[in-house]
Amino acid sequence: MSDEERPVGPLDALKIPRFAGPATFARLPRRDEVTRCDVAIVGVPFDSGVVYRPGARFGPAAVRQGSRLLRPYHAALDVHPFAAQQVADAGDIACNPFDILEAIRQIEAGAKELLSACRRFVAIGGDHTIALPLLRAVNERHGPVALLHFDAHLDTWDTYFGAAYTHGTPFRRAFEEGLLLRDHSIHVGIRGPILSPQDLVDDAGFGFRIVSAMDLETLGVAGVVQRITERVGGAPVYVSIDIDVLDPGLAPGTGTPEAGGLTSRELLGILRGLRGQRLVGADIVEVSPAYDHAEITAIAAAHAAYELLSLFATEAP
Amino acid sequence: MSDEERPVGPLDALKIPRFAGPATFARLPRRDEVTRCDVAIVGVPFDSGVVYRPGARFGPAAVRQGSRLLRPYHAALDVHPFAAQQVADAGDIACNPFDILEAIRQIEAGAKELLSACRRFVAIGGDHTIALPLLRAVNERHGPVALLHFDAHLDTWDTYFGAAYTHGTPFRRAFEEGLLLRDHSIHVGIRGPILSPQDLVDDAGFGFRIVSAMDLETLGVAGVVQRITERVGGAPVYVSIDIDVLDPGLAPGTGTPEAGGLTSRELLGILRGLRGQRLVGADIVEVSPAYDHAEITAIAAAHAAYELLSLFATEAP
Amino acid sequence: MSDEERPVGPLDALKIPRFAGPATFARLPRRDEVTRCDVAIVGVPFDSGVVYRPGARFGPAAVRQGSRLLRPYHAALDVHPFAAQQVADAGDIACNPFDILEAIRQIEAGAKELLSACRRFVAIGGDHTIALPLLRAVNERHGPVALLHFDAHLDTWDTYFGAAYTHGTPFRRAFEEGLLLRDHSIHVGIRGPILSPQDLVDDAGFGFRIVSAMDLETLGVAGVVQRITERVGGAPVYVSIDIDVLDPGLAPGTGTPEAGGLTSRELLGILRGLRGQRLVGADIVEVSPAYDHAEITAIAAAHAAYELLSLFATEAP
Amino acid sequence: MSDEERPVGPLDALKIPRFAGPATFARLPRRDEVTRCDVAIVGVPFDSGVVYRPGARFGPAAVRQGSRLLRPYHAALDVHPFAAQQVADAGDIACNPFDILEAIRQIEAGAKELLSACRRFVAIGGDHTIALPLLRAVNERHGPVALLHFDAHLDTWDTYFGAAYTHGTPFRRAFEEGLLLRDHSIHVGIRGPILSPQDLVDDAGFGFRIVSAMDLETLGVAGVVQRITERVGGAPVYVSIDIDVLDPGLAPGTGTPEAGGLTSRELLGILRGLRGQRLVGADIVEVSPAYDHAEITAIAAAHAAYELLSLFATEAP
Amino acid sequence: MSDEERPVGPLDALKIPRFAGPATFARLPRRDEVTRCDVAIVGVPFDSGVVYRPGARFGPAAVRQGSRLLRPYHAALDVHPFAAQQVADAGDIACNPFDILEAIRQIEAGAKELLSACRRFVAIGGDHTIALPLLRAVNERHGPVALLHFDAHLDTWDTYFGAAYTHGTPFRRAFEEGLLLRDHSIHVGIRGPILSPQDLVDDAGFGFRIVSAMDLETLGVAGVVQRITERVGGAPVYVSIDIDVLDPGLAPGTGTPEAGGLTSRELLGILRGLRGQRLVGADIVEVSPAYDHAEITAIAAAHAAYELLSLFATEAP
Amino acid sequence: MSDEERPVGPLDALKIPRFAGPATFARLPRRDEVTRCDVAIVGVPFDSGVVYRPGARFGPAAVRQGSRLLRPYHAALDVHPFAAQQVADAGDIACNPFDILEAIRQIEAGAKELLSACRRFVAIGGDHTIALPLLRAVNERHGPVALLHFDAHLDTWDTYFGAAYTHGTPFRRAFEEGLLLRDHSIHVGIRGPILSPQDLVDDAGFGFRIVSAMDLETLGVAGVVQRITERVGGAPVYVSIDIDVLDPGLAPGTGTPEAGGLTSRELLGILRGLRGQRLVGADIVEVSPAYDHAEITAIAAAHAAYELLSLFATEAP
Repeated sequence: MSDEERPVGPLDALKIPRFAGPATFARLPRRDEVTRCDVAIVGVPFDSGVVYRPGARFGPAAVRQGSRLLRPYHAALDVHPFAAQQVADAGDIACNPFDILEAIRQIEAGAKELLSACRRFVAIGGDHTIALPLLRAVNERHGPVALLHFDAHLDTWDTYFGAAYTHGTPFRRAFEEGLLLRDHSIHVGIRGPILSPQDLVDDAGFGFRIVSAMDLETLGVAGVVQRITERVGGAPVYVSIDIDVLDPGLAPGTGTPEAGGLTSRELLGILRGLRGQRLVGADIVEVSPAYDHAEITAIAAAHAAYELLSLFATEAP
Repeated sequence: MSDEERPVGPLDALKIPRFAGPATFARLPRRDEVTRCDVAIVGVPFDSGVVYRPGARFGPAAVRQGSRLLRPYHAALDVHPFAAQQVADAGDIACNPFDILEAIRQIEAGAKELLSACRRFVAIGGDHTIALPLLRAVNERHGPVALLHFDAHLDTWDTYFGAAYTHGTPFRRAFEEGLLLRDHSIHVGIRGPILSPQDLVDDAGFGFRIVSAMDLETLGVAGVVQRITERVGGAPVYVSIDIDVLDPGLAPGTGTPEAGGLTSRELLGILRGLRGQRLVGADIVEVSPAYDHAEITAIAAAHAAYELLSLFATEAP
Repeated sequence: MSDEERPVGPLDALKIPRFAGPATFARLPRRDEVTRCDVAIVGVPFDSGVVYRPGARFGPAAVRQGSRLLRPYHAALDVHPFAAQQVADAGDIACNPFDILEAIRQIEAGAKELLSACRRFVAIGGDHTIALPLLRAVNERHGPVALLHFDAHLDTWDTYFGAAYTHGTPFRRAFEEGLLLRDHSIHVGIRGPILSPQDLVDDAGFGFRIVSAMDLETLGVAGVVQRITERVGGAPVYVSIDIDVLDPGLAPGTGTPEAGGLTSRELLGILRGLRGQRLVGADIVEVSPAYDHAEITAIAAAHAAYELLSLFATEAP
Repeated sequence: MSDEERPVGPLDALKIPRFAGPATFARLPRRDEVTRCDVAIVGVPFDSGVVYRPGARFGPAAVRQGSRLLRPYHAALDVHPFAAQQVADAGDIACNPFDILEAIRQIEAGAKELLSACRRFVAIGGDHTIALPLLRAVNERHGPVALLHFDAHLDTWDTYFGAAYTHGTPFRRAFEEGLLLRDHSIHVGIRGPILSPQDLVDDAGFGFRIVSAMDLETLGVAGVVQRITERVGGAPVYVSIDIDVLDPGLAPGTGTPEAGGLTSRELLGILRGLRGQRLVGADIVEVSPAYDHAEITAIAAAHAAYELLSLFATEAP
Repeated sequence: MSDEERPVGPLDALKIPRFAGPATFARLPRRDEVTRCDVAIVGVPFDSGVVYRPGARFGPAAVRQGSRLLRPYHAALDVHPFAAQQVADAGDIACNPFDILEAIRQIEAGAKELLSACRRFVAIGGDHTIALPLLRAVNERHGPVALLHFDAHLDTWDTYFGAAYTHGTPFRRAFEEGLLLRDHSIHVGIRGPILSPQDLVDDAGFGFRIVSAMDLETLGVAGVVQRITERVGGAPVYVSIDIDVLDPGLAPGTGTPEAGGLTSRELLGILRGLRGQRLVGADIVEVSPAYDHAEITAIAAAHAAYELLSLFATEAP
Repeated sequence: MSDEERPVGPLDALKIPRFAGPATFARLPRRDEVTRCDVAIVGVPFDSGVVYRPGARFGPAAVRQGSRLLRPYHAALDVHPFAAQQVADAGDIACNPFDILEAIRQIEAGAKELLSACRRFVAIGGDHTIALPLLRAVNERHGPVALLHFDAHLDTWDTYFGAAYTHGTPFRRAFEEGLLLRDHSIHVGIRGPILSPQDLVDDAGFGFRIVSAMDLETLGVAGVVQRITERVGGAPVYVSIDIDVLDPGLAPGTGTPEAGGLTSRELLGILRGLRGQRLVGADIVEVSPAYDHAEITAIAAAHAAYELLSLFATEAP
């Protein structure tokens, strides 16, 4: 490509130390600094949909801070995610903390605007409520998608305190709205007590399969990748990562922790196994920094985002 | 009084260590364990009205845990707050985290029910939104009251993101609803940048006076007590303590910290100076334990509650 | 069963948010609120038997707080632990922090009283000293039992500073008192330096086998379950879980941490493999919240307790 | 002033929540977003000059995060610091962490460039080493200045491990280089053990006076302001605030903590008393966030910066 | 004095950085490294006497770590505490954590041995139980002494759970044993709820006066010094500092925190006012590092010790 | 061996509790207390070579504190590491924090002096810069060695900000200086983004092989041991452990954390597999306690050191 088309990468760490410089994701350029945007990193600081510990509104700032050590080359995938495509930080989508429905509209509008100019996005939450409007925007561009969902929880509840739109319900709503391909979606990392067997019946009825966290003990990373690959079956895939898919001992900075989760190595390994899938967008949610320590949760989330960006880059134009 | 009328006090710490036993406030009996209730301690775990750091929904549990060391006798006021009156823990008022207006109705109903059976309450928040429905309940019983408000912030804003009922607006709403006596209310501890001079004009228009945190440097505790006494002028007083009145260095566990606050000694000293006032109810709000350390904020709040209970006891039946 | 026999379960989280309501385990009823008690959860806030970091006296309160997210249905075991049996929170057994022998008598008396009314208990420590009096109570009802002991340490030392009853000695004492079945007991998770080879000789002499933490690398969860099953051999089993069986990186809130431990997924997986065993009681000890972060240790302990309750439920009347 | 001259202020918090939006100081515009810059906020993430706890390299990011709650109007000084002058965030001055002398040159060059375009700056450290090159830049524009120095330490040592340029020596070097007016400089907040009486002799020889932290007990805020005013005597003043002037209990996030410090209220009160002085520049240094808790140190530093900006505004063009 | 008599001071910080070198108090020589010992610093890691949060057994290590920044010259008292006398670190007195009475005997024996060779000691606890055996040792050498006691609590209770020797009882026992001069002892910093008015009656009966924490608001540091001076009346004085005399917001690392305490500046100022008193020994107790943050409590304790050492030096041989 | 030759071991924990006594590694004797020293534990508190989070200067003190629970017998290796050889704590090598080159010279000199008297050492960092001078000293005694390097990073960069000697470059420099055997060195645990593919080309050119962290998922501990064994091929081995080889969730107290690391069980298991190798020395670096929690990182490092000492003991004289 010509010089003017060459993507603008992160700041040069040999000139500006990693602890200095702007607080964009991986010290990448802001979206307004580049003329082209293949992938937008966008923050969605909204957490009014949570049922237990709040605080994910501070997630985008934390994940950006946790991304300062990300370097330009992914050796395992042999790709330069910031050179093969223009990645830019699109800032935050401002949304109303006091009105969930208005916030959902704001996020949907923001995401659609992004997709009008950028090919893909990785959204940084915020709580899982944000996945619904993000999927709506993805749907407008790609039609129904397979959902690859990493989480301790199904997030296919119906209502909570009469509220239909919370961080426990996005994927039931998404299914009802026709945003998800039937029989191509899958949850990975499910564990912990649930409300009733009906939760599982409903979930299966929405076309989901489940790889539980405990399945990792027998399937291993490769086995889980195979299950995902079979399930997705070549469909366009939206990846939604609730950071509570990780064990709370490794990723304490989150709101509804359940013991017995994945390690970050397992998560990164599974993501890496997605090479070749048709990824259309992604979110990483539920990083709640008030419960984090030494940025460990934020760093895990930043590395998960880096895997996604690298996967995008393997099929970049 | 006869034996059956004698208030049931906290568990005996010489038999059950303070780190053991039920998680009621000061290890007092639950409301359902006593036949009489002069003062109810009630939790209001609601924080959906906050504009910055959430988490005060965990405040009631934290303050109860921070109250385990409270002993039965207040030497400076020479009173036994748990013997001069029946204090009981009324548990939490459950409220909807997704619907502020419904939550306010639930809190109002809960507080009215309490006041139908108990003479007074000390409510433990929760964010400052809860003061409005609490004042409505107090008003039903006592009519308009003088408000003695400890806080870094005025909390007389109008709206935020279009929302009229948040933790920044309870006292403007209370004034508009006629719940406050004009010219008898006072803020103590105000500090930090504000939005505009109009905030002060409005606030004065609602009949408030201000003792700023910096005034403590010149007035001292005694001077502030005098200002309060003059302002209140013998009217029935409702005390609302936002724990962010304390310096964030001393009380980090809160949501909208402002440097330059009061010490807990100053707060306790001022409260102690209220002896002789006609106190009709109180709340202590904005303890957000995810930001606390070693329970220091919760302990300060628990001690402030103890001062209020002791003041109540000085005029107990 | 008839309506009046139907167990009273936890508070309904769709009406009372999980961050609200009483601080009982999993928000279950207190023992005095129910007429029947199949399983008692009981706190034993005693830590005067520790040799290094104290603080487990605050363990029961922490584990109860960490249990607020536990929901009613265990999918992997397909059981409703709170519906198949009446589980109730029996509060704390008060014991003397200054006199280990008296404390042991108090715990033994408390546990015996519990077992006079409840079929089984899960005790929440407290340090491991408490296992001895708990086993005495179990013995009175069931005779000698197989001990399934999860721990980094053998806990079969003899004395320490001349003291025969500490958190390092309960199972030697239990063996000497005839509380344990010879040749049916097993330690899981043992690791770290020990005092001398004689420790192992003694331990074997008391009839124990060992599955070390490092064995997990080769045996996996299933292999460990098989070893346990073979060892226990159908005998009545008492399960004692020292939370330091987990890696200190995942469960820092404990007093004698040793690197190289189990993950919580491994622990939960092994427990789940006990389905079909004859469990007669259990304890979970050594949660020391002053060293915990974001409740991760307490949550792991609460989930382990949930597994035990679910196992109990699979063989409930 | 005309519309195009009106300063661009912070983001509107009624549209974009304070936890969202860019990580500039107080969410102000970046310097490259405005055509005019009266006051630059500039980060200097350098901490290779420290003798004890490092980490102030992360100070600028922390203080910016701690500044998100700063609102537009300073009531006590009756000034709008962001409207009376254009304040902009000039980002960080990148400097070499491995070569103190080169870093000092980089900081000096960066500050001179800033002052070629902006009237004044408030620099956010970094460690106190940075004050020397900042004073050099100020000197180029204003000639020698009075130094008003808030600190627990004199910072007029000679060398340490043979190094002449560390965070313990900037003001001896500044004096030697003729950057300071003789007999107009003053330290405020000095306390703690020192190396020898010669330290004081040297310091006096460089023309400094001292107000110790303990003097606050007798002088109070007003008395200290008077001492400063007399000492400064109308000269142009550079203010250098080492955050360790505050008590470590209130501001733990710093590198060389000494017990017995100022409260943030005292610091803000003294700063406020500088109204009318000719302030030519300022720095706030030694915020080390790895030792901070709940941002309390960063918030204190952000508020001190706000006082300085407000003072600047009282004499803005 | 001759060269061989010149005290050996701390390591030279210009050669060995303060973060390096041995973990003795202030990096002073060990007692076995010097031939003379005027003042011994001795750790007493015992905390089995506490009624609430344990952990002070780790106090000596924490205070030593917090003392690394102490430098050789005390400017306000114009004294070199490490040059005017030989100060040495005598290590820890090992004591039985499972037997309070034996531990007390061990501490008494250890302290007597120390005083057989060293003129004075500053003991670092450990919980307040240790003051009794320390006073016994002091009594053997000096006879009854005036007690200057800094604490939130009286520590003149009788028994707790039947135990006569706990951290709540040392000074009643000391009085009963004739170790204290009647009518010369004084508590400073008392606050918080107590068990009953009888506590005060008993305390007065043992010859104590009280300066409460709230008295600081009116008396100030100078006024408190005057009260102490009058009370002590020239008698030999033993100083016992429970670190909980400080506000828990400033010194969270302690076991029985009470809101409304002293600042470290007040404590250091009062200590400094003791110049001229006949100090015979001292302890600093109840530093519990598991609850500390960034060493702030340990640093406050280390500075208090430095004041005591400096006072000793003003009257050194 | 005769009595006078019998190594002096750690303090007896049955007489002096583990939380008491000197702060040497594992409470072993100091080097100056023993006449013979087979293995020296030496601290190297230097962190001026780091590119991101500093603080490893406090690593030696933290690891010593984290080693207090280490007991005398290693069951899996069936060896008494403190009895089979004289292990002693040689204190810290003081080095200049302001001059990397001088510090490297000081460390080299210190290590050479150590090796003139002690057969081997385990150095506790400090940052990874220290490995170069340590290897120089080892080379003087043993000639070129195989390097077994546990780390998330290659540490074979060339320069950073023009500096050739930082914590990212020691092994390129070591190779250039001929300190390493070509074709016998290996990195274990590598992961995370790197600068460019050239990093890998260079690294291979210096004769390194790589076992990535992700390889553990397929190879397991035994497979990694086999790879190491084959690579080392009987050569003398120097082991360098950067604690960031562990997952940051398990070992947060470090400076350049990368998600997806090893567990401490894996690290200990691999080390244990080195039995029979010819180990000539070792370091454990990059423990940065300001980011640690509850000593979990320090404890992991202490246990790794214990494995090394035990390996040494298996081939002790």
